[in-house]
Amino acid sequence: MIRISIDAMGGDHGPEVTLQGLQRVAERRPDARFVIFGRSEAVEPVLAKMPRLAAVSQFHHCDVAVRMDAKPSQALRQGRWKSSMWKAIEAVKAGEADVCVSAGNTGALMAMSKFCLRTMADIDRPAIAAIWPTARSESIVLDVGATIGADAQQLVDFAILGAAMANALFDVERPSVGLLNVGVEEIKGQEEVREAGRMLREAGLDTMDYHGFVEGDDIGKGTVDVVVTEGFSGNIALKTAEGTARQIGGYLREAMGATLMSRIGYLFARGAFSRLREKMDVRKVNGGVFLGLKGLVVKSHGGADDEGFAAAVELGYEMVKAGLFDKTRTTLDLYHARKPGPVSGEAATNI
Amino acid sequence: MIRISIDAMGGDHGPEVTLQGLQRVAERRPDARFVIFGRSEAVEPVLAKMPRLAAVSQFHHCDVAVRMDAKPSQALRQGRWKSSMWKAIEAVKAGEADVCVSAGNTGALMAMSKFCLRTMADIDRPAIAAIWPTARSESIVLDVGATIGADAQQLVDFAILGAAMANALFDVERPSVGLLNVGVEEIKGQEEVREAGRMLREAGLDTMDYHGFVEGDDIGKGTVDVVVTEGFSGNIALKTAEGTARQIGGYLREAMGATLMSRIGYLFARGAFSRLREKMDVRKVNGGVFLGLKGLVVKSHGGADDEGFAAAVELGYEMVKAGLFDKTRTTLDLYHARKPGPVSGEAATNI
Repeated sequence: MIRISIDAMGGDHGPEVTLQGLQRVAERRPDARFVIFGRSEAVEPVLAKMPRLAAVSQFHHCDVAVRMDAKPSQALRQGRWKSSMWKAIEAVKAGEADVCVSAGNTGALMAMSKFCLRTMADIDRPAIAAIWPTARSESIVLDVGATIGADAQQLVDFAILGAAMANALFDVERPSVGLLNVGVEEIKGQEEVREAGRMLREAGLDTMDYHGFVEGDDIGKGTVDVVVTEGFSGNIALKTAEGTARQIGGYLREAMGATLMSRIGYLFARGAFSRLREKMDVRKVNGGVFLGLKGLVVKSHGGADDEGFAAAVELGYEMVKAGLFDKTRTTLDLYHARKPGPVSGEAATNI
Repeated sequence: MIRISIDAMGGDHGPEVTLQGLQRVAERRPDARFVIFGRSEAVEPVLAKMPRLAAVSQFHHCDVAVRMDAKPSQALRQGRWKSSMWKAIEAVKAGEADVCVSAGNTGALMAMSKFCLRTMADIDRPAIAAIWPTARSESIVLDVGATIGADAQQLVDFAILGAAMANALFDVERPSVGLLNVGVEEIKGQEEVREAGRMLREAGLDTMDYHGFVEGDDIGKGTVDVVVTEGFSGNIALKTAEGTARQIGGYLREAMGATLMSRIGYLFARGAFSRLREKMDVRKVNGGVFLGLKGLVVKSHGGADDEGFAAAVELGYEMVKAGLFDKTRTTLDLYHARKPGPVSGEAATNI
């Protein structure tokens, strides 16, 4: 049984869509159980029409729903202890749920998750990991926006967190990990990226295969299973790729509608276009995963429809099922225990 | 008459391709004149077969050609004063050419350009500007890899340089300028990006329309004429977009070849696909422009074919024709003269 806490009020479309998403998950994953938080007048009428979902769910009323445009600090001030978002996160902390899913505002969700769950021991700052469709299959890219700037140690931690997630989701024993940089030569790039590369090489972790530096175009190629970077460039890479995909989609629609011949061609190739659309369907890879906290939280895209929200919930489900949290903990313990602490190291030389 | 100095030895394919590119430019732009540098045994036999190009060109032999895989420091040590790359840059410095074009290695070309031409007064570090095809038309994105990290003043300088280039190339009186950031809220993002935003707003320059922050997906939308960022994230955005375009092109080819129906559809829609291909043709927008130096240098993609190299040469041609260099100088003088210097400003308050 996998227990999932849900902030039903998050997202642009509210409970109508989030509950329809849950309904889909309930049909596809019979061992999923839901703890749903939201305003009763919005949730209960919808839930009443979904007996199958209701049978595997508990519902708790909350007075407050965090607004999609609330600033993180404001959301934290007004929504702490009582909002549906907070309550869904708290259910993970209290051990009542294995993972929390919300389509609410990213900044607020991250601020509350940090405040409520706290970061894991040895981890300074959390990361948001995205699943990126590639020419080969899928890769994990982190951080895509939780932390602006990261030092070498934080990049190494992100590599460990990302590798554990890839191991859990992709079923690869030692996922390959690359550090995002502006060139493959050792001399290029930011100081902290170079230093992180050195640390990863020296650590020789058996939970990952450190590949070295990768560049922006390696992400789409699927050169490595895990691409590690700090949140500023990661977020820009993610949004730039989304923008490029939309732009090309627009060109394609324009080209196919331009002449009678192209419209006839489109009719013949309809099947091919629907396969292409499916491949480019962002809903299927919906879900940013918050890593490095003492509990799992998945952020669904705010504009996701029911199938998109279901994908985010199923992502959380898969990670719990694969034991992501314990795997991460084990690798982190191993790495940080092995790493010579600066104090004891000094002392040893002085004796 | 526009005089263009050419490093004929640069690029993956060497003089065969660079000269064929020049031949195309010579046909299309009768007032272009070329000063060509390279090894005589490689260049002269090719040039001999192109009387039309030869008639508008001067050729100078150079002993040394910079290797495509040379490190910048190595290239500078071995190629300074005597390589075809150096000589082509030097022709701009000496006033014998208005712009230099090379398909040689980016790091080497930037190192030599900085060493030979030096940065403009008031400019600390140069930038590489890329022309980015957007859903609307084209935008300029800078820096895409010359400087890793940039402080607020450098970002402001990049904005001025980029706006001057947009004004010259796109014929817009006051190009709109956006700072690349991870959110449109004022509170988000890196300190230096926020500070640069404040400075640009306060400067109220009449050579640009400062739009505010933009995100990664705004680049492809064409939200602004000029997108400003430091070289690390700019390079990652550029390469990620290239990678995504290639990835989708691959999906499309796969989908269209998958079934008999889709292949028939492809035949009908061939015209549409060739228009799409043309729209996605990177050769047409080939050319990274080095800005902020005391002279214009254009970097062509190393793998460019003759049409691609011609596009880079014509980009240089257009910028000279539009008087980019003087426009930039005028705006910079205006901005830096108006800006109160820290020393004189202090003195004034103390009197």
